[in-house]
Amino acid sequence: MAMVAEKLRKIYQNSHADALFIECDFLRRYLTGFYSTDGYVILDEKGCKFVADLRYFEAAERELRGSAVEVVEGSYSQAIELIQGKKTIGVPYPFINVTAFKHLEEKGFELVDCMPALKEAMLYRSEEELSLIQRACDIAEEGFLQLLPEIKEGMTENEVAALLEYNMRKLGASGTSFDTIVAFGPNGSVPHHETGNTKLSFGDPILIDFGCKVEGYCSDITRTFLFGDDKKHDEFKKTYDIVLSAHDLVRENLVAGMTGREGDAIARDHLKKFGLDKYFTHSLGHGIGLQIHEYPNLSPKSEQIIENGMVFSDEPGVYIAEKLGIRIEDSMYMKDGKTHTFMHKTQKNLLVL
Amino acid sequence: MAMVAEKLRKIYQNSHADALFIECDFLRRYLTGFYSTDGYVILDEKGCKFVADLRYFEAAERELRGSAVEVVEGSYSQAIELIQGKKTIGVPYPFINVTAFKHLEEKGFELVDCMPALKEAMLYRSEEELSLIQRACDIAEEGFLQLLPEIKEGMTENEVAALLEYNMRKLGASGTSFDTIVAFGPNGSVPHHETGNTKLSFGDPILIDFGCKVEGYCSDITRTFLFGDDKKHDEFKKTYDIVLSAHDLVRENLVAGMTGREGDAIARDHLKKFGLDKYFTHSLGHGIGLQIHEYPNLSPKSEQIIENGMVFSDEPGVYIAEKLGIRIEDSMYMKDGKTHTFMHKTQKNLLVL
Repeated sequence: MAMVAEKLRKIYQNSHADALFIECDFLRRYLTGFYSTDGYVILDEKGCKFVADLRYFEAAERELRGSAVEVVEGSYSQAIELIQGKKTIGVPYPFINVTAFKHLEEKGFELVDCMPALKEAMLYRSEEELSLIQRACDIAEEGFLQLLPEIKEGMTENEVAALLEYNMRKLGASGTSFDTIVAFGPNGSVPHHETGNTKLSFGDPILIDFGCKVEGYCSDITRTFLFGDDKKHDEFKKTYDIVLSAHDLVRENLVAGMTGREGDAIARDHLKKFGLDKYFTHSLGHGIGLQIHEYPNLSPKSEQIIENGMVFSDEPGVYIAEKLGIRIEDSMYMKDGKTHTFMHKTQKNLLVL
Repeated sequence: MAMVAEKLRKIYQNSHADALFIECDFLRRYLTGFYSTDGYVILDEKGCKFVADLRYFEAAERELRGSAVEVVEGSYSQAIELIQGKKTIGVPYPFINVTAFKHLEEKGFELVDCMPALKEAMLYRSEEELSLIQRACDIAEEGFLQLLPEIKEGMTENEVAALLEYNMRKLGASGTSFDTIVAFGPNGSVPHHETGNTKLSFGDPILIDFGCKVEGYCSDITRTFLFGDDKKHDEFKKTYDIVLSAHDLVRENLVAGMTGREGDAIARDHLKKFGLDKYFTHSLGHGIGLQIHEYPNLSPKSEQIIENGMVFSDEPGVYIAEKLGIRIEDSMYMKDGKTHTFMHKTQKNLLVL
């Protein structure tokens, strides 16, 4: 609790506002640890208050008793009362809509962006956060392993996705961390393919990009593999090994103190050696937390220094339109100056079912 | 297609801007009919353009060929180029964040809220939209019916939710329309209970609030029933029948031309006759579309006129803390001046498993 109080104090101080006023759901959860679909968090020099209406008040009070967060019953007008008389109010510009923003402006508050202060804190994951992400990763991998023997010829992408999601849910996930992508055959060459009713045939490559949530925290993983080997996969196999090396090189060579750009370059430069970098059409990775896309970015433009406590994906990919699509992704974290993977259960050498 | 073009033209005209600039995902899907996680829609006097990056360009072009929407390859800067030289730009204030808003302001555009024009259009569902919502409702009900024989003593709320979600997914839903609520016993008295690891015991009431998505369109349904009758449910049964009457009275008596407030009052006044209105702590209903909460609102304060083509939930509830919680909900629509339900498969008389 002392650590939470310290974290909250730091966010308050770094935001340079008289108070923070937060409505956005995942930020509410980050600051209080409590899940709700509505409510307001007020952070000021006196501490942190969570304003919950009748639907959540009781549960919030029970769960947050003895924590650094005081629970107050009410809704918007009660939350506004708590900041009445203050001048500068911090709101998260990327996570507040313009209607809500203008309401606050009309009440005479001077609004500043508190997202830099929140982002600065959220970049560094606590032990508790890391262990929740680890659980979300364990469940994702376990769900995938339980899926493999159930994959049969003629199944649709949707059926495979449904089964995988069911496995993760049964294993304790509260849901998916994003829409599961299952792509059969050439569908894999569309990096954000919408899972559909394509049926599985012998020899098809399968790309599955998926993840789940545990107490709000996300996992993110992609595996590409073959549903039987029809002996027409020479280029696929060659490319697969190159993508896998790119993926592995990041884990081996990305150390604390490097920038997101340098991390991205580890994979991109490797693909370039084989003329494949032009088919790597997205960034290497993104931060993972209460949202599936957080900080840091590992992209050609990112000057963010990667440091201990940060969590990010390592997901190089090669997409040749209507031909092949390969992506290999683990959720990773930086510890003791080195990159470690959360994923220990599933193989990354090419799997042939 | 002519109808879509007409719809787009009307939104453009009603927004009183030189162009609309839309990034928000469900609005993009509403305007184009195409699903993507990124992209921009530009609506101006010349028509509708969808700016898609390499991940979506091909699929969008294929799917939207011959439609009222022209697909352009690019991302943010290409989208901005398309509105260059225009003065007033419409953006949806409730669905644009302040960071994006300020970016546009800094480029010299004068921004106005186009949400009223969008809302006005979205209130009235096309036949195609109604049939997608119908499919989402059919799948939700079918998934529920397949769930019932699988419910066993000792199962957790999470297991029941996982099974229900799997059923809907297998039946063709792309996912849930919101986090499934499964509440056993007294948990039902918390209207937004977070589904957890409470185990099912003989005699428990079960409340399940759930829904799924079909091509983006949502269904929303709640059923409350008994897992065996331990003969301690006299008050529960009496209350159940009153809530069901409140629910039915809305379908019978809500006619086109009434306000959301008057619709809400049909249920609330009925509960009041039995002294139960103080336990009905939320609104009667909300619009349902590409989002689970759209317009119209059916609440004590809503002056929105309910008209033909509108879709909304009818969900009266009674919640007595730590004692009982009952909610009965169908997704409904207004047609030929009368209220109709989308739900035809599941019973609403008290079910005892």
